[in-house]
Amino acid sequence: MKTAAILGASGYGGGELIRFLDAHPEFEVAFLGAHTKAGLPLSEVHPQLTGGDRILERFDPTAIEGFDVAFLALPHGSSAEPAMELLAKGITVIDLGSDFRLDSPERYTQAYGTDHPFPDELGRWAYGIPELFRAQIASSDRVAAPGCFPTSAVLPVAPLVAAGLVSSSGIIVDSMTGVSGAGRGASDGLTFGAIDESVKAYKVLSHRHQPEMEQALGAVSGGPVQIVFTPHLVPMQRGILSTIYMRTVNGTTLTDVEAAFDKAYGSDPFVRLIDRSPETRWVVGSNNALVSYHLDEPTGTLIALCAIDNLVKGAAGQAIQCANVMFGFDETAGLPQQGWMP
Amino acid sequence: MKTAAILGASGYGGGELIRFLDAHPEFEVAFLGAHTKAGLPLSEVHPQLTGGDRILERFDPTAIEGFDVAFLALPHGSSAEPAMELLAKGITVIDLGSDFRLDSPERYTQAYGTDHPFPDELGRWAYGIPELFRAQIASSDRVAAPGCFPTSAVLPVAPLVAAGLVSSSGIIVDSMTGVSGAGRGASDGLTFGAIDESVKAYKVLSHRHQPEMEQALGAVSGGPVQIVFTPHLVPMQRGILSTIYMRTVNGTTLTDVEAAFDKAYGSDPFVRLIDRSPETRWVVGSNNALVSYHLDEPTGTLIALCAIDNLVKGAAGQAIQCANVMFGFDETAGLPQQGWMP
Amino acid sequence: MKTAAILGASGYGGGELIRFLDAHPEFEVAFLGAHTKAGLPLSEVHPQLTGGDRILERFDPTAIEGFDVAFLALPHGSSAEPAMELLAKGITVIDLGSDFRLDSPERYTQAYGTDHPFPDELGRWAYGIPELFRAQIASSDRVAAPGCFPTSAVLPVAPLVAAGLVSSSGIIVDSMTGVSGAGRGASDGLTFGAIDESVKAYKVLSHRHQPEMEQALGAVSGGPVQIVFTPHLVPMQRGILSTIYMRTVNGTTLTDVEAAFDKAYGSDPFVRLIDRSPETRWVVGSNNALVSYHLDEPTGTLIALCAIDNLVKGAAGQAIQCANVMFGFDETAGLPQQGWMP
Amino acid sequence: MKTAAILGASGYGGGELIRFLDAHPEFEVAFLGAHTKAGLPLSEVHPQLTGGDRILERFDPTAIEGFDVAFLALPHGSSAEPAMELLAKGITVIDLGSDFRLDSPERYTQAYGTDHPFPDELGRWAYGIPELFRAQIASSDRVAAPGCFPTSAVLPVAPLVAAGLVSSSGIIVDSMTGVSGAGRGASDGLTFGAIDESVKAYKVLSHRHQPEMEQALGAVSGGPVQIVFTPHLVPMQRGILSTIYMRTVNGTTLTDVEAAFDKAYGSDPFVRLIDRSPETRWVVGSNNALVSYHLDEPTGTLIALCAIDNLVKGAAGQAIQCANVMFGFDETAGLPQQGWMP
Repeated sequence: MKTAAILGASGYGGGELIRFLDAHPEFEVAFLGAHTKAGLPLSEVHPQLTGGDRILERFDPTAIEGFDVAFLALPHGSSAEPAMELLAKGITVIDLGSDFRLDSPERYTQAYGTDHPFPDELGRWAYGIPELFRAQIASSDRVAAPGCFPTSAVLPVAPLVAAGLVSSSGIIVDSMTGVSGAGRGASDGLTFGAIDESVKAYKVLSHRHQPEMEQALGAVSGGPVQIVFTPHLVPMQRGILSTIYMRTVNGTTLTDVEAAFDKAYGSDPFVRLIDRSPETRWVVGSNNALVSYHLDEPTGTLIALCAIDNLVKGAAGQAIQCANVMFGFDETAGLPQQGWMP
Repeated sequence: MKTAAILGASGYGGGELIRFLDAHPEFEVAFLGAHTKAGLPLSEVHPQLTGGDRILERFDPTAIEGFDVAFLALPHGSSAEPAMELLAKGITVIDLGSDFRLDSPERYTQAYGTDHPFPDELGRWAYGIPELFRAQIASSDRVAAPGCFPTSAVLPVAPLVAAGLVSSSGIIVDSMTGVSGAGRGASDGLTFGAIDESVKAYKVLSHRHQPEMEQALGAVSGGPVQIVFTPHLVPMQRGILSTIYMRTVNGTTLTDVEAAFDKAYGSDPFVRLIDRSPETRWVVGSNNALVSYHLDEPTGTLIALCAIDNLVKGAAGQAIQCANVMFGFDETAGLPQQGWMP
Repeated sequence: MKTAAILGASGYGGGELIRFLDAHPEFEVAFLGAHTKAGLPLSEVHPQLTGGDRILERFDPTAIEGFDVAFLALPHGSSAEPAMELLAKGITVIDLGSDFRLDSPERYTQAYGTDHPFPDELGRWAYGIPELFRAQIASSDRVAAPGCFPTSAVLPVAPLVAAGLVSSSGIIVDSMTGVSGAGRGASDGLTFGAIDESVKAYKVLSHRHQPEMEQALGAVSGGPVQIVFTPHLVPMQRGILSTIYMRTVNGTTLTDVEAAFDKAYGSDPFVRLIDRSPETRWVVGSNNALVSYHLDEPTGTLIALCAIDNLVKGAAGQAIQCANVMFGFDETAGLPQQGWMP
Repeated sequence: MKTAAILGASGYGGGELIRFLDAHPEFEVAFLGAHTKAGLPLSEVHPQLTGGDRILERFDPTAIEGFDVAFLALPHGSSAEPAMELLAKGITVIDLGSDFRLDSPERYTQAYGTDHPFPDELGRWAYGIPELFRAQIASSDRVAAPGCFPTSAVLPVAPLVAAGLVSSSGIIVDSMTGVSGAGRGASDGLTFGAIDESVKAYKVLSHRHQPEMEQALGAVSGGPVQIVFTPHLVPMQRGILSTIYMRTVNGTTLTDVEAAFDKAYGSDPFVRLIDRSPETRWVVGSNNALVSYHLDEPTGTLIALCAIDNLVKGAAGQAIQCANVMFGFDETAGLPQQGWMP
């Protein structure tokens, strides 16, 4: 068994990491790190989890050692320092946060408004969508797990921009997400009163996942890709549905599109093309991504729909999928291929 | 007091018509028509409504007479015949259904797959968005109240296509609706189990509100308008949020856009421009429409957001607003300008 | 028009007070008081409300004067001082909070763990359920509007203990409430993540509405009444359903029970007996209370079910109903007798 | 591997049986039986489940053979005949329905209003709560898995009536359930519109789980037990919380109660005593039952709270737990001990 440390164990992502790794045949959870919840028993922080009387511990990255892998599920900006300490000790790092996703200091500064503390690191991290970057992930000791929205947008679009079937500009990603994507903390905008029975767009034209999408799709297509992205918050706990509008080029047909999809993901266990509009309840609880394509011939508009569970394929599940690739385990080990319903 | 008949009183739209008209200073409800619920007391069909022991009655359009106005809240295809009977008796008709919204037999047949029983009528009905077609409504005895999605899409886009600020092609309308838009009937796809904690797109590229949007915007702009429309169902009772993507032309600025909006709706009581993304809970219960605009300069993409209550501004409220215009009453009479929260 | 000040305008109760009073034929809102939200426009604090550019103002009770009535919708413990200032200036006070509900310093101290700042006031305030205490309310210049749970429990039980049809001990009140009952503030327990798709009991055997129920029922029955009360939080915005278990005495029949109800509330516009289990959606948005009774003959257990909207009959609506009584207006003036659905 | 047939695979219970058994180390799903859904691929009926291209098959109990165990997840009244056929072929039967739960023809007729087709069978089936009836289950080839409400009520009360700590009469079970307990079918009362944002009691004093509770508690206590039961429907998918009121006898203390609980369940993996009110989200997705006790000394009222997932411990999970006991496997095999959150 490989030993795993989870830093940031008290959030939703941390909870799912614990749940999946406790059932994983190759990893065992050896450390649960937390900040404000340090000292509390796991059963108080995550009453849904059992398994004895584990305690969340304050983590001191300089003191941590002896683990094979560390999963970082920390707020933005909090991963960089511990990641560098852990790597220096030979511990493999998978960061579920956004500190190492962008590949250049310029892009980072533009997106986040601050300079990165370790600019030389940017570009050295593999981007953790195994279906698209498996080789880089397998050969790396540091992986930046993607954002939840980029996962749902990059998977259905990547094969099409790579094959030149759609224009690399004018791509519109319109996404709906469950509320767990905003984390577990309390704020006026995340009360039940503010969320239930209402929907809204937020961070219109300013969400930080937009440059991440452009970068990942650019890497796949070999040229710049331009995205307009609008996230919406809807009253449910989990799930993302992205509705993506693209312009076809040169008479692209649905057959072309589906062939490109099959070529890209034909043997992948978690990414699947279906012939009807996916509903998020069909993926919730699993590491699956369901995709459908719809072509409006009069306007040459191709619509892709992609549904994932933002906490699984969009976070903890995909991070463990990366770990499986990095350590040479079965890519599906410990990961749910079946969701729950209702 | 003018007397009003409501045909189709048992549904959600019918319930809101009763609630608003019972409180209206100029109309009184004189007849409640129903089919399968005929014979039942109102308190059983709409327990939220009170006001004595009214009974829902089976309606025979050939026998109905003596009312000033009839509101038809019937399933698609069921309005045409009673509407013609009522008009023949000199009763003003406001149809909340879709039977008379399209203005030509060709458009109707294309959208609905059947021929219209009274093709000569198409084009003779006013389209019931008072803010855009007030004069036609005021001078007509027959109004087709718009669909809920078209209301939310046409209001924010109309001033822009009319002023030539955005391209009339490549307009994408991406909408989320609460479940009451699907009516009150039971079906496998509308159970709590199928809706709660999930989102989906439906009728992708085939929803019948798309030609209605194109027609209304074409009427305003004086030329063809091309729409790609994707409706989504989200787990809430009421509310529509439409996120609309347009391409600006000739260096349109946000100032231009807002000036066009003000010119179109400056003195209208229910349509309002705000400087932050609207949430549907800000309009639920009221007849208001809240709009915001957002310009992505690098791509020349203009995003409009519009929130309405699908049962009020998107149905019963707007129908009564039309009635107020038709009878020369204060346009806001009997209509809620304040919503509830939470 | 009588002028009304609302102190605590930013919360849910304050919002409903504004909405109802803006439509009230006899009162006009003349002052909107707030603390942390002072200085903000109403449209920012309550985007669902319109009506010009009113601003929330910091209130200084010593400076306020010239109003006919003040509605206090303040956190517990914050009403006492401003109430005394306002009364000293001849302003009628209706307190939606709990500062003046209990009628003796001992009871207050036992319930709240602190001494009351104006102990002589306790017992001088009318308890604001008009259907039961109309005369006291009509002749008083100070009314303590009841808690939401007590309203739902006292209404169905009062006629029965008054008539001696059920035992005054062993009464169990088991209630479910929507989340708005907990107010508008953010906390870990009130996030969407913590509330949605879950139910819980809270403050088991320690909720402060229990002594309030015992006091009100004791006042009606003329002797001590003993209540065990369990509130539950359920994932919805509004509504309370109380399920109440009583032990019948001396062969009480359902006919006896219904006769007692009719005698107590026969001509009251808002309290109604129905012959099926009430659902909270039947009262949401209205000032109504719906009650049903069910007798288990083998065990002599009488079950009462009572549904109200916690923000209307359980708060703002009932407070205005009290104001109507105090000022001699029609008791239903400005109050919704019809709710919305869905 | 033992082979399992699932009859009634298309419902929520059937879906969970498939999900758990597909991951079970000792059982494999060998047959998926359905009626109206027969012929459809599993991926269409349960899109959340994967695992190849299995087809739901029409089942003919007279033709089925060769399985080790059959799980019956059928509508009430549909299990009896196939169960007898299967048993006659030597197939172990676990019935998730209610056909064989009551132990006498009289009790059955009283509860269901019809005579049982195989009256001699009643009393021969083990009642499937392993924590209380493990020996009977282990030695039987036919188990009636309990109803969801009885599971949540019997677990916390059984040790107390068995030890004589509470009165066997005057027990009140007040339960809230998620909507999946009503099954997957569509009806007017189960639409999103009818359920969302509302609560109600239903089948007041007439729910068929009441005699089942009395029978199971009577079996444990050795004498008659009398229950008043009120189920409530709340707007969530899964979960039951039962709030149970009992009268203590002879000065029972909380220490006595907890000692009785520990004696009954001390080493059981799924049933746990906690020191705060359980929330259903803490058990959803797992086979756990969480219990807390609260004593009101002034009235001698003991409150028990018990939370379970109605589809897991209340249905599919407990059925598999029974199968594990019957076949001598680890009682936790294939069952989730950790739930998900949110």
